[in-house]
Amino acid sequence: MLTNAEIKRLKSLREKKYRDEYGQFLAEGEKMVQEALASGFNVLQIIREEPDVMARISSLSTPPPVIAVVEKPAPRPLALERALYLGLDSVRDPGNMGTILRLADWFGISTVFASSDSVEFYNPKVVQSSMGSIFRVNAVYCDLPELCSRFRAMDMPVYGTFLDGVDIYTQQLANEGLIVMGSESFGIGAEVAAQVSTRLHIPSFSKGPGAESLNVATATAVILSEFRRR
Amino acid sequence: MLTNAEIKRLKSLREKKYRDEYGQFLAEGEKMVQEALASGFNVLQIIREEPDVMARISSLSTPPPVIAVVEKPAPRPLALERALYLGLDSVRDPGNMGTILRLADWFGISTVFASSDSVEFYNPKVVQSSMGSIFRVNAVYCDLPELCSRFRAMDMPVYGTFLDGVDIYTQQLANEGLIVMGSESFGIGAEVAAQVSTRLHIPSFSKGPGAESLNVATATAVILSEFRRR
Repeated sequence: MLTNAEIKRLKSLREKKYRDEYGQFLAEGEKMVQEALASGFNVLQIIREEPDVMARISSLSTPPPVIAVVEKPAPRPLALERALYLGLDSVRDPGNMGTILRLADWFGISTVFASSDSVEFYNPKVVQSSMGSIFRVNAVYCDLPELCSRFRAMDMPVYGTFLDGVDIYTQQLANEGLIVMGSESFGIGAEVAAQVSTRLHIPSFSKGPGAESLNVATATAVILSEFRRR
Repeated sequence: MLTNAEIKRLKSLREKKYRDEYGQFLAEGEKMVQEALASGFNVLQIIREEPDVMARISSLSTPPPVIAVVEKPAPRPLALERALYLGLDSVRDPGNMGTILRLADWFGISTVFASSDSVEFYNPKVVQSSMGSIFRVNAVYCDLPELCSRFRAMDMPVYGTFLDGVDIYTQQLANEGLIVMGSESFGIGAEVAAQVSTRLHIPSFSKGPGAESLNVATATAVILSEFRRR
């Protein structure tokens, strides 16, 4: 049985401050715990307690039957391959971040880069909405302009979406390079935009005055689908 | 200035019970209020009060400077045209519902049907995540199996996504018919599935054991993009 102090410490992992301090995060629910155990992540503790204890620890509105305490992976240098990568510029919404990790997993993108002002990968809502993909996709914080330079230096394209970009449905797309997705509110920042080699646009099919933009996760879905189907 | 009783009544519109009782819902924030005013919806009241009053009424964590009280449109019979429609089977998550309305708006789908056990269109989170598309797209509850029959009777295809469906990237797609999206947890119900004329599948490009499925909103994004690009 867990002591009150232990419960309090586990509960503290809902907050970024304590996830950073302990280098740990929570995976909640049977599916998520299974995914953590099946992954290369270091699972430190499996918690199965009475519902009232689970409710105190959990970030979910319905407390799960099981929670795992997982070690955050240490950042490690990554050698770029001639493959497709995703780069996220200031993606702040945890639901969007988790959904994008799940999309990357589905569309065979092994590594997702994010600017350091993006939401934390180990935020409970990111972990949950990734549906376990957080345990399969490399999620790496980086200096995005510097990363773009590395792609350009290797002669790989850097793609970004802009209102004045070329129609993605007719544009030639490579099967290597970096696809940058902008923030929900501000799009792609100027420093990164300056490094984009191909400006893409998802055209609207609305007949009248329609939606002004797509949500960043659904735009990512359309773009990854277009890159991969060809 | 609003009385306490008025504030209480407005606050009650956060709940479905009272939205049904009054036949009204809230549009929160400058953008949403502008969209409501620009639409054919009947805007009953515009509220601009001190922040503490706005905080009491609003469903948002940061209270907006303005809120509109909007009349729910009365359900009206809809004559089916030879066009593309979206049908949602038990979509429960308000964020997904709002995002799908926004996608429909972007991809020129004039009407979105939903089974009556789907989340309410006028739920504050649906309104918010639709980013105003709730005011431009017809959102209609219906008996989904009966709707499928109507499409079939007009000799229009009914599409649905299934794990054993045909690859959407190579399948011929019509520019008319109904695209049914299943619930996040249970997919498409048996009664609707029996009426689907073309079973589609979005293939995964993951090299190892990847994500098991896509979120319903991102799957809708991929599917609408495929129908429209051709």
